[in-house]
Parts: sequence; C-alpha cells; structure tokens
Amino acid sequence: MLAALERELAALNTDVGIVQTQYATWDEPLRLKSGVELAPVTLAYETYGTLNSQRDNAVLVMHALSGDAHAAGRHQPHDRKPGWWDTLIGPGRALDTTRYFVICVNVIGGCRGSTGPSSINPATDQPYGARFPVVTIPDMVAAQMRLLDRLGIETLQAAIGGSMGGMQVLELAINYPDRVRQAVLLATAAKHSAQQIAFNHIGRQAIMHDPLWRDGDYYGHQPPAAGLATARMVGHMTYLSEERLQWRFGRKLQSAEELSYAHQSEFAVESYLDYQGNSFVDRFDPNSYLYITKALDYFDASDGFASLVAAFEQAQARFLVASFSSDWLYPPQNSEDIVAALRVAGRDVDYVAMNSPLGHDAFLLDHERLTPLISEFLDTTEESGTPS
Amino acid sequence: MLAALERELAALNTDVGIVQTQYATWDEPLRLKSGVELAPVTLAYETYGTLNSQRDNAVLVMHALSGDAHAAGRHQPHDRKPGWWDTLIGPGRALDTTRYFVICVNVIGGCRGSTGPSSINPATDQPYGARFPVVTIPDMVAAQMRLLDRLGIETLQAAIGGSMGGMQVLELAINYPDRVRQAVLLATAAKHSAQQIAFNHIGRQAIMHDPLWRDGDYYGHQPPAAGLATARMVGHMTYLSEERLQWRFGRKLQSAEELSYAHQSEFAVESYLDYQGNSFVDRFDPNSYLYITKALDYFDASDGFASLVAAFEQAQARFLVASFSSDWLYPPQNSEDIVAALRVAGRDVDYVAMNSPLGHDAFLLDHERLTPLISEFLDTTEESGTPS
Repeated sequence: MLAALERELAALNTDVGIVQTQYATWDEPLRLKSGVELAPVTLAYETYGTLNSQRDNAVLVMHALSGDAHAAGRHQPHDRKPGWWDTLIGPGRALDTTRYFVICVNVIGGCRGSTGPSSINPATDQPYGARFPVVTIPDMVAAQMRLLDRLGIETLQAAIGGSMGGMQVLELAINYPDRVRQAVLLATAAKHSAQQIAFNHIGRQAIMHDPLWRDGDYYGHQPPAAGLATARMVGHMTYLSEERLQWRFGRKLQSAEELSYAHQSEFAVESYLDYQGNSFVDRFDPNSYLYITKALDYFDASDGFASLVAAFEQAQARFLVASFSSDWLYPPQNSEDIVAALRVAGRDVDYVAMNSPLGHDAFLLDHERLTPLISEFLDTTEESGTPS
Repeated sequence: MLAALERELAALNTDVGIVQTQYATWDEPLRLKSGVELAPVTLAYETYGTLNSQRDNAVLVMHALSGDAHAAGRHQPHDRKPGWWDTLIGPGRALDTTRYFVICVNVIGGCRGSTGPSSINPATDQPYGARFPVVTIPDMVAAQMRLLDRLGIETLQAAIGGSMGGMQVLELAINYPDRVRQAVLLATAAKHSAQQIAFNHIGRQAIMHDPLWRDGDYYGHQPPAAGLATARMVGHMTYLSEERLQWRFGRKLQSAEELSYAHQSEFAVESYLDYQGNSFVDRFDPNSYLYITKALDYFDASDGFASLVAAFEQAQARFLVASFSSDWLYPPQNSEDIVAALRVAGRDVDYVAMNSPLGHDAFLLDHERLTPLISEFLDTTEESGTPS
C-alpha cells in the first residue's frame, strides 16, 4: 500500500530532484576577443538527465544576465526555491530529462562559480577586480564549447536561451554551425540599440560612482551595495511591463492608509523595488554586473560578417524565435529583425509572437505557453532529422 | 538708411529680449496639504508682455520638474541659451507677448529662487535640507495664487503647462475654477501610475544612498552629485523615445574606431548621458529633486472628489489637451483618460494626439506644431467669450 503510494507520487513528481553544481578547470589559456589570454578558466555547470550512447541528446541552456548554472532542481531538500528555469526542465517538462541531457553553464565574467572578476588573479594572488579582462558573448560561448569537448559532445541536439541566453545561442549557431541542430531564441536581440546600451550604462555608472566600489577592489570590504541595488532597480524596471506593474501595484500604499508626507518609501511599488535591489546584493557581485552588461552592449551577432543575413548563411540549425508583446527591453521588433534575416538567408525558422502582459520576464515566467512551443519544436526537428 | 535697417530688424525680432527674475515674499504662513505651515514663502517669477487695464490678459505658464521661472528671453545679452520655452513666448509667438501678459513662477520646493530645501529655515538659521516640509502640486498652485492676488489678477486668460506643468494646470482648473478661462495640458497625466512612481523612486534612492547626501545636510559641502547624475540619467531616459535615441546615436562610438575592451564610456549614447547627468548637477539641487518628484508621485487630480469626472464637474475652463505618440513617460493613454473624464463631465475639450518621434520632450521641442495649436486655441476661446 505504501509502496504503491510511493510509486504514484514518483510518477507525479516531474522535477529533477536534488542536484549538484559541478566544476571543470582548464590551465590552457582562453584567448579572448580582446586579445587577452585568460587562465586558468573554471566553469561551474549542472546537468540533468543522461547523455545517451550516441552522445547526441544534449541540450545546452544558456542563461541571462543574472542567471547561473543552477537551472533546475534543488541543491538541498529544503531550498526555498528551485533552479531558475525549473518549470521547463524535468521529466515530462519542455526540456524532458527522460529524453535529453540538459546542461547549463555559468558564463565567464559571472560570479556563481565560473571564472570572473571575483576569482583569484594568478599574477597577483588577489581577486582580479577591475583588472579582469573584458569578456564578450563570443568568449562566453567559446568557454562553453570547451566544456562540450570535455563531455564528449560534438553536436548539441539544441541550444536554448532567453535574453542574453538568446545572444549566446545566436553566437553558437552562427560561429559553430556544426555543433547545434536546433536553436531556440526567446526575447532577445541580435545587437543592442542605443536605449538598451543606455540603461546598462546607467547601472554601471551607479556601481562605479558608489565610493565603496574602490575601483573594483572591494573584496574583503563592504561591497558597493547601494550602487548595485540602483543598477538592479533600473534593470528590473526594463524587465516588467507597465501593465503588469499597474495591475500588481497601481498607487497602493505599502502599509499606511494615508500618505506620510515624509521621505521613506511608501507606495507598494517602491517597497517592491527596494526589495528587488537589496536582495540582488546578496547573490550578485557588482563587478560581474559591470562585465556582463558590457558583454551585452558589445554583442553584435553579425560581427565578422558583411551583414546579419551573411552571418545566418553560415548557420545550419533550425530556429525557433519567440517574442512577447509587452517586452519593452527586447521588443518583438528585435526578434522580427532576426527572423527576417534568417528567412533571407534561407534558414528554417518558426516565429511565435506571443501576446503577454508579463514583459521581458515572460521568458522566465510563462512556462505554460512555452512548454508546448518548445517541446513540439524539439520533437518536430528530431523527426525530420539533422540538417545536411 | 541705418535707422530703416534697425526698424526692419526690430520687426523681425520676435523674442522678448532681456528679462529679469523678480521676487515676491510673504511672511504669512502657507498652510500645506500635510498640515505644516511654511513661512516665509518667496516666489521667483518672470513676466513678459503687459497686463492690460482690465487685468484679464494674463497667461500663467507652469513649469515641469527641472524647469524654473526663466521661461523666455535672456538675463544677459550673451547668455548661451534663452529661457526654457522661449520658442513659444514672444511677440507673434504662440504666447504672443503683444497680446498676453505671460507669467512663469518657480515652484515651491524648487531651487531656482522660490522657497525650497536650500532656503534658510528660520527656526534654525540653517538651510532646511530634508527638514523642509513635503510640498504637493496643490501647494505649488496655492502659492502661485497668492502671486496672482498680489499682481491684481483675478482670472487668468489661460494656464498652460507640460508634464508636471500640466498637473498644476489641472489642479488650478479644478480647484480654482473661477480663476482660469482656458487650460492647456501637454504630455501630462491626472496621476502617476506604478511605473511613473517607480522611475522617480529609483532617482530618489540614488540621491539618498549617495554618502554625500548626509541626510540632506550637504549645503556648504560637496553635494551628492553622483546620486543626482544617476537620477537625472534615469529621468532623461524616460523623456526620450527609443526611436530618437536610435536615430541620434545607434551603436556609434564616441571617439574611437574600435571597442576599447575597457571600463570607460565609449558608445556615443553613454557620453551623451554622462553629459546630461553631470551638467544637471550644476543647475539643480539634489534635495529639490527629492521634493519635486515626491510631489509628482503624490498628485492625483481627483483628490477630494469621488472621481476624476466629479473633479472636472467643478471646472469651468475650456480645455486643450495634447499628447505625443512616442511619449512613454506620459503616454497618450494618460491624456485620453483626462479627455474622457472631461467629456463625461460635460466640459469643452479639444484633444490633439500628435504623431511625434521626440518622446516626452516633444512638449519642449516641437514648437512648430505647438505654435498654431496653442495660438488658435487661445484665439477661439477669446472670440467665444468667457464661460458663464
């Protein structure tokens, strides 16, 4: 009776359970786009599911600005929250771990286990700080290709990512065309516009003008928490739609019945932003925020080609592109520019413009609509075989 | 010959010439919405044109967040720039100073001559700093009504303002219905949404977290310039349209040919924002930024009434409302909400939704299209007489 109940519960249980972050290190220098050589390079990564004997069922999940390798499951049974894309990864979920070997790698420049500005600089035995070399989206992807080599994965079944993750997928599909059969781009852009650069710039200035930043050498001291909180609040605003903010907060006061006529935060939306800013400080390194936003601003998927069309002529993967109507950070037009170039280049592309009130964050939140979209796309291509 | 040329030049000259800021002070306390009494109260103001003998040709220009009393003309012959709305004010311009007596008053809470946080607190003989009482849009308008009393102006021909200026016009038209015959609202809102509050909140937090803010007591010390610059950059982004930024800057680099792979600002849009932030510090008091954004967030034109419609049932003025398509700070919907309520309340209202790439700043910049709109509106109502 108890055994039967356990079996039933197990059948209902579609999450990946307890997982561990793994680490891989290379002493061989990674030559960055800037020409600087970075060594050693450590990558933090997690995997879910099992690599099959043909080693062809791997799906690489590529994370966004504030993401990390912990995409699914829990590190400890009582973790308050699972990984950041847990709703899409697990047995029977969009990235079905009974079929796919799902990999997620923390980007270099980050602060969640992979080499970044808080890592020890072997030249000084001190944290790099602002002496860490500027890394680019191509550098982040090159590092992940090393990990695929080490795992013995020549060609990915798929690469998938939203926002900065989508930029990494673009870089991978264009510059490593024989390493990926399916590319899923959510809420992303082929390059940043002036407005996208500007919001990142404001965040960087807020951090660098915080006196606690100390030119990047704050490790062992108080970090520039106020600067990072401001940067996060600015960023967070661009992730939310006006309508979602209005529906959730409107002009509601946080606790009082009446206006206080004082300086503290009193509207509920103010308290919410304060919480977003302050809690980010606990999990993110301000220097990594500088480096990763710089990588976003630098990225141009057509770099090294005459045009985005010429870049896509190199690609071999089949593409799925999705945008969200209320995303004003990477508005649907950004996705449509990618889709138009893919079509001119003769690539196979499905485009879904989703009507959503969730803003940019829809790619993280709207798993109910993303699940059939992604799982059917992965299925279809599997049936039609790999591209020539 | 020379005299004829001079006369011709004079005829071509449609600006108001050299002007002076004037000051009026009241010792009698102004009772604020918060219940606090403010005294003394000084108002800085400028006037252009001549008050007629019936004293009924006055037009009150109400300024926005970073504006001041200097709306037109120059203080010195070689001033680099004229007043902030010079393109609309002068002989033959939209606010024709050969016909109207134009008045512009710096709001209380400001830092350009009217009583604000940098004024001396008579209780301590020190600048108020953060002990200055919170002022509201109704308080700003109440102070200006005192000035009209002193100038002997019972009823204004018109009140006109964009952004926060539009809110002051709303307050005036609703709560002083017999003091204004025509109300012109440009790029404004009847109350702030959660998003509008949120962007102001981020700016306030950036200032208050700057250690140089010193709880508001920085007078005589270095001001919290970095915090104010961040606040201004955030605000400035909301004034510009995405398309205008893209057209003007795109991904252009400021000076170099290639990416620097370093931490400095290098995209042209970054340098532009740095300039906007840093130059604002020279002309604006960080504490005033806190107070005035708070007044914006607090404002609700329907305060004290059952609804906005009920509020407008009080009004007697004829209204002109204009919005700009690419204004995402006060999007056209904000104006349309006002217009809908005015119509339900049975008020006389013209609404013009202008197609413009200039973003929120269009109300300051698009004088070519605003000139006929405003001058015809003022004319028409004049012919049809004052409301009963």
